[in-house]
Amino acid sequence: MIITVSRQFGSGGREVGKRLADELGLQYYDKELVTEIAEHTDLNEGYVSSVLESGGFRNYAFTFGRSMPLVSATPAPVTDVLVAQQKIIKAVGAKGNCVIVGRSADVILKEMKPFRIFVYADNASKIARCRAREHDGEHYTDKQMLRRFKEIDGGRKKLHDLLGTLPWGDKNGYELMLNTTNVNIKSIIPALAQYIKSATM
Amino acid sequence: MIITVSRQFGSGGREVGKRLADELGLQYYDKELVTEIAEHTDLNEGYVSSVLESGGFRNYAFTFGRSMPLVSATPAPVTDVLVAQQKIIKAVGAKGNCVIVGRSADVILKEMKPFRIFVYADNASKIARCRAREHDGEHYTDKQMLRRFKEIDGGRKKLHDLLGTLPWGDKNGYELMLNTTNVNIKSIIPALAQYIKSATM
Repeated sequence: MIITVSRQFGSGGREVGKRLADELGLQYYDKELVTEIAEHTDLNEGYVSSVLESGGFRNYAFTFGRSMPLVSATPAPVTDVLVAQQKIIKAVGAKGNCVIVGRSADVILKEMKPFRIFVYADNASKIARCRAREHDGEHYTDKQMLRRFKEIDGGRKKLHDLLGTLPWGDKNGYELMLNTTNVNIKSIIPALAQYIKSATM
Repeated sequence: MIITVSRQFGSGGREVGKRLADELGLQYYDKELVTEIAEHTDLNEGYVSSVLESGGFRNYAFTFGRSMPLVSATPAPVTDVLVAQQKIIKAVGAKGNCVIVGRSADVILKEMKPFRIFVYADNASKIARCRAREHDGEHYTDKQMLRRFKEIDGGRKKLHDLLGTLPWGDKNGYELMLNTTNVNIKSIIPALAQYIKSATM
């Protein structure tokens, strides 16, 4: 069984993925993938993480400028990262029995027929979730938070839409879409795990 | 507890609603509403059903022309039907503990905070479901079926979008979206019921 979790920033999608993996006894992947990519491509982990989070486009020059000589600022390394990412996700998928959060794994592993979940929530709920994680919200006004959601989700959408045929967040690309507005994520996990098992029997 | 089920034609949404009502011990409503509307407004039941299914617009004159004198073909009766429908759905919602399939109940009862489900599936799966219900599919080619899906869902969308602020099928208007492609509906019901209970605790 392969489960992919795509999610809006602040919707608690990572928590859904982690708890679901624990509940079902599956391997869990998200940032670990980035580390692995970094190890395989000799790229700086923070840089790789930033490229993946931003979709590898808009923020590229900015990130690059801070850590590497300007003369190397060509698109090639981004492509390398994306290719390395695909290889690693395919390897993870081939092992099976895993939950992968983000990284467009739903598209990359499409032929392995993963159970694809999309997690979303309304803005008030996403702001509240970010503020509850102190380091995520303490320095931002609501307006700044909303702009941040747009930027981060915009990056996820770009990477997804580069690889896939259906737009990021389009229901036809997912088996299940969960609205986590006012939902205690911990409490839905047993039923969610059961739903996935019964839907894939 | 109020649960509303919106659904693409052929996705098995009605079955989801009926089985969920049985599982949770809730009252179930769909066509019965139409009957009740017909009784309250002295309109022909078939006509009312047709108006509701079509969204009350495009097919109006055609349906009308067959059963009533042409001189009465004004928009007024359609409005009457919609107003009567809203009254009845509000009365049903006020009683509570129910599952309502279709009829834009998700929008009409929005202030009562129903748990709103949207059920969808891919075209192959919807065609197969319709063919399995003999009277729904026997006379149609695949192409005709797809056209029929578009017409019926187009009507549902129109009625929904007339009353609501979010488009029909937009994830932000639902607590849960279920893709029933290759899913045995009966087998997901216990987990689905449990999910709803745990998400609304």
